Amino acid sequence: MTHNFNAGPSILPKEVFEEASRAILNFNDTGLSILEIGHRTSIFEAVLDEARQLLRELMNLNADKEILFLHGGASTQFFQVPMNLLNEDETAAYLDCGIWGIKGIKEAKNFGKVEVVASSKDKGYTYIPKGYEIPANAKYFHYTTNNTIEGTEVFDIPQTSVPLVADMSSDILSRNMDFNRFSLIYAGAQKNIGAAGVNVVIVDKNILGTVSRKLPSMMDYRLHIENGSMLNTPPVFAVYVCMLTLRWVKKMGGI
Amino acid sequence: MTHNFNAGPSILPKEVFEEASRAILNFNDTGLSILEIGHRTSIFEAVLDEARQLLRELMNLNADKEILFLHGGASTQFFQVPMNLLNEDETAAYLDCGIWGIKGIKEAKNFGKVEVVASSKDKGYTYIPKGYEIPANAKYFHYTTNNTIEGTEVFDIPQTSVPLVADMSSDILSRNMDFNRFSLIYAGAQKNIGAAGVNVVIVDKNILGTVSRKLPSMMDYRLHIENGSMLNTPPVFAVYVCMLTLRWVKKMGGI
Repeated sequence: MTHNFNAGPSILPKEVFEEASRAILNFNDTGLSILEIGHRTSIFEAVLDEARQLLRELMNLNADKEILFLHGGASTQFFQVPMNLLNEDETAAYLDCGIWGIKGIKEAKNFGKVEVVASSKDKGYTYIPKGYEIPANAKYFHYTTNNTIEGTEVFDIPQTSVPLVADMSSDILSRNMDFNRFSLIYAGAQKNIGAAGVNVVIVDKNILGTVSRKLPSMMDYRLHIENGSMLNTPPVFAVYVCMLTLRWVKKMGGI
Repeated sequence: MTHNFNAGPSILPKEVFEEASRAILNFNDTGLSILEIGHRTSIFEAVLDEARQLLRELMNLNADKEILFLHGGASTQFFQVPMNLLNEDETAAYLDCGIWGIKGIKEAKNFGKVEVVASSKDKGYTYIPKGYEIPANAKYFHYTTNNTIEGTEVFDIPQTSVPLVADMSSDILSRNMDFNRFSLIYAGAQKNIGAAGVNVVIVDKNILGTVSRKLPSMMDYRLHIENGSMLNTPPVFAVYVCMLTLRWVKKMGGI
């Protein structure tokens, strides 16, 4: 699989395009377009279930991990993460290694305190800092696993007792790691999993429910978990393309 | 055109499905799938421009109206509207005529005061109240033009000096009206314009910028206006399907 580490859209396998193209005219011989299938039908629920199941299997996720398919892109997660996890008087630790991390830091500051634990700004974001310390009282530690613009990648999962949050938008299916070490993983699907307009969010439900602010329903991970990513009409087609890609990744032997 | 007044997905014309299906394999003879076209290319900008231009023409919108294509569904707008328009000490007026209005009211209460000016709850939401008064000091008045679940529709635009906000998700292209009388119109596109995962938001820019809270970038209408709906990667395919549908509506003679 060719991975697109750039900021642009994904390079998906041809057979995913072919099947998606067919599904727009006639999805699974239902005579209906995937675009006109109700999301609360067994037909679509099977798609969503398969996408979740494939991701759980491919990433070897344990039972504490919830898998959500949410509207928006990683830019939505830049604020949804601190909105769900960070109180105003709490501190989140961030790694400052490029444009995506900078955006995440900016949005987090609207919700609480941010401590930048390390930065590679001094050399134009050309390297990944090492040897930094993550304060033990940080609510979470956030980093971008792959910096598309700057061309750097964090290979080792940081050692810390603080919950780990990672933006894996641009490398989520490109290499294996112990994904269970993360409390929250998000990825805008347009890079390596599917079409623009859906986020994959993998969250340990144990870290939720600790903020005092009122969350808009659509921004509340807990409500999405309770409703199985069906709190409202999900981005049906984008979820379907994710599922096709995950099926293809499995067929190719996994991550 | 068959309109789907239900909560489910839209019934789009067959030629829209056919063209969308082709575009997944080969968009406009570029040899590329619409799913792999970068959103910051002239190819996609032409799609977005055409969608905006068609909507402006079909709805006869004046120059003050900005047209945005945003991630999410109407449920996202239920909170994004008050987040952008309502301060905590201000009051928004809402019409309570069914499930969508109820959800909008619930989300608005997280951001400011809500006055329900009229309700048809007493008779199970089977009618549209008349003769109600909208307080002149309300920040805006919100109503749902068509109640999909309850089967009622508001035909006359309320007379008021207060900015009008309407959820037109389920009837946006089904009947003509003086759309310029609204300060903000939103519609989850999956009902009558396109595929799930994109909102059409038509907003008078003059009503923005009056709230004191810090808005997450992705929730700030002004930033989306400045960036021409390209603040982040838009839901490319869903926008494309909207454009095809709008093209078809024009060909059929308009709204």
